[in-house]
Amino acid sequence: MGRCIILSSSTLNPSRISPKPTSILPFERLRFSFPSSLPANSQPLKCGFCRTLPSTFSCGRAFSTKAILSETPSQRQYFKVGAESTGPIPSDQLLDVIETAAKTGAQVIMDAVNKPRNITYKGLTDLVTDTDKMSEDAILDMVRKNFQDHLILGEEGGLIGDSSSDYLWCIDPLDGTTNFAHCYPSFAVSIGVLYKGKPAAATVVEFVGGPKCWNTRTFTAAAGKGAFCNGEKIHVSQTDKVERSLLVTGFGYEHDDAWATNLELFKEFTDISRGVRRLGAAAVDMCHVALGIVEAYWEYRLKPWDMAAGVLIVEEAGGTVSCMDGGKFCVFDRSVVVSNGVLHAKLLERIGPATEKLKGKGIDFSLWYKPENYLTEL
Amino acid sequence: MGRCIILSSSTLNPSRISPKPTSILPFERLRFSFPSSLPANSQPLKCGFCRTLPSTFSCGRAFSTKAILSETPSQRQYFKVGAESTGPIPSDQLLDVIETAAKTGAQVIMDAVNKPRNITYKGLTDLVTDTDKMSEDAILDMVRKNFQDHLILGEEGGLIGDSSSDYLWCIDPLDGTTNFAHCYPSFAVSIGVLYKGKPAAATVVEFVGGPKCWNTRTFTAAAGKGAFCNGEKIHVSQTDKVERSLLVTGFGYEHDDAWATNLELFKEFTDISRGVRRLGAAAVDMCHVALGIVEAYWEYRLKPWDMAAGVLIVEEAGGTVSCMDGGKFCVFDRSVVVSNGVLHAKLLERIGPATEKLKGKGIDFSLWYKPENYLTEL
Repeated sequence: MGRCIILSSSTLNPSRISPKPTSILPFERLRFSFPSSLPANSQPLKCGFCRTLPSTFSCGRAFSTKAILSETPSQRQYFKVGAESTGPIPSDQLLDVIETAAKTGAQVIMDAVNKPRNITYKGLTDLVTDTDKMSEDAILDMVRKNFQDHLILGEEGGLIGDSSSDYLWCIDPLDGTTNFAHCYPSFAVSIGVLYKGKPAAATVVEFVGGPKCWNTRTFTAAAGKGAFCNGEKIHVSQTDKVERSLLVTGFGYEHDDAWATNLELFKEFTDISRGVRRLGAAAVDMCHVALGIVEAYWEYRLKPWDMAAGVLIVEEAGGTVSCMDGGKFCVFDRSVVVSNGVLHAKLLERIGPATEKLKGKGIDFSLWYKPENYLTEL
Repeated sequence: MGRCIILSSSTLNPSRISPKPTSILPFERLRFSFPSSLPANSQPLKCGFCRTLPSTFSCGRAFSTKAILSETPSQRQYFKVGAESTGPIPSDQLLDVIETAAKTGAQVIMDAVNKPRNITYKGLTDLVTDTDKMSEDAILDMVRKNFQDHLILGEEGGLIGDSSSDYLWCIDPLDGTTNFAHCYPSFAVSIGVLYKGKPAAATVVEFVGGPKCWNTRTFTAAAGKGAFCNGEKIHVSQTDKVERSLLVTGFGYEHDDAWATNLELFKEFTDISRGVRRLGAAAVDMCHVALGIVEAYWEYRLKPWDMAAGVLIVEEAGGTVSCMDGGKFCVFDRSVVVSNGVLHAKLLERIGPATEKLKGKGIDFSLWYKPENYLTEL
């Protein structure tokens, strides 16, 4: 694990810094990270200009136009979030039902997308609510037809079914409601099925393109079986530098301290990466990490139905999943970071401390909700 | 027609203002708009504190933390940015060449998108640079074959052709390079043709969908002839409330004061609207306003080839275009706000003062570049 110090000398001389930086990049601020493997007696890193360790990460001098970054990759390991298997139900059988259910919900949405819109506010609100509900109903029908005894947690319908079941379906019948309301891609149907509390199989049907060219793309994954997009195996990107990464995040409806913190993170990462996209649908953003078109995604204030499918798809595509404090993640948590794995620790160097600060302020990061009596192996 | 005056008294007393403001809102600056239907003999609105009409929209007192907003929808008129016509070349003929040229460039990009990617940084950089250049070359061939004497401003090739021509082609052969490099939709080919300095005809070919489902969508517009997407007439949205709007913005490569200001605007509008999307391609974002799936887009630090096509497509779809200070826009400017029109003045209540502050800091908002000897009617 490394630490990151921002030096603000305008004339910092890399040769005067120990350990020696491995690259100099044209950013507006100086940054330097060093490994924790420094000898115990080594001196802390100092600003080459004022020769002090800036406690506020700034010695008050004008910023340099050069940035200094360590190239040492972090080797920190993160916990696996997916189940070991799909349990007594074979993965093909489970996935088949999930995919069919998700596509049934998607058909409801596609019908609504192609319908002429009532431009009044009330009309639009009704369309969104009705579509959300109709999609969930269509999905539930399919689930119950196949697995009468499974427990189901739906965004619309809440918890139904048998809580003694090992299987818990987490269903978002329409992820990205605001985008849907505006016909702005992307939005999705997201279904993740947990086995003893851990994601075991998942499908996300993403709506892409937009008016005049709507289309869908289907992501699937089963524990230990890899992740697929439209039937082809997918893999996260191999980008190992933040400054070459494209990132994506989300901002929830609640404009609290966590929201403000994430706006700060948005700014910081917009500054040091190739950009931070803001697309508006959690399941979709995670699938984009799995597909390798963005390197990472994070968000506070998510719900199990937002995350259950996406986290498995990312992990099965070779990526890494954790909470925003870097800790072990489960789908009942309130925040998530998913990445291509190689960048995970580097991103957490900023996301982690920001999240710890929120904890220090008393912001609740305990499990959001876990169905009572549902037995898990978490 | 209304006027908008920013008062900067910290103790402004609404009862001393005529006409009476209809609401008080917690903004950082005082703003007051009044209708033009005031009696001819009425006094101009004055600052309640210093009793002067602030010529610079500020009387120099500390800003209040309360804003006073009229609920009267602003009827402010904005200048038309499009040309009156396509000049001596019939619009159908001009548009036909533009569209063919844009689609020829798009074919180059589609070939590159479907090519297996070399994951090394150098390989990727080469792919991006080569594709950008090959797309521009293909477009230039088509333009020269049809109009030997036209002036051309390309992102890659700079200015070429006859500067005595009334026609100036502004070509972005690959708008949204970062997205293209990551296979992240959207990106585009954008071609806008000016007649005597004003946009007269335009085509944007947008790449949508992404891996496993790439597709394109073509936007076209000609002066006075409306805007079209895949051949169908399009119109901006009719949303008239900021809190019901979906917005989009961009952040350029240069991380200067304007960049920081826009991050503040991103935060403010994320707070008060349904969300601010950040997609990464200026021409695409503007077309999305024209298509009615977002209500507005703004960005500092744009170039003529980013804007020439998009602004005409928005205007021909019924939208409004101005600079970020609210002033008259031309494609040689450095910033733009495009909207569905009904929201324009409301958005400028925040974007305008933020931009004025940048001007106050000495940030350059003069024309970015206008080809020497190119005669315009601006």
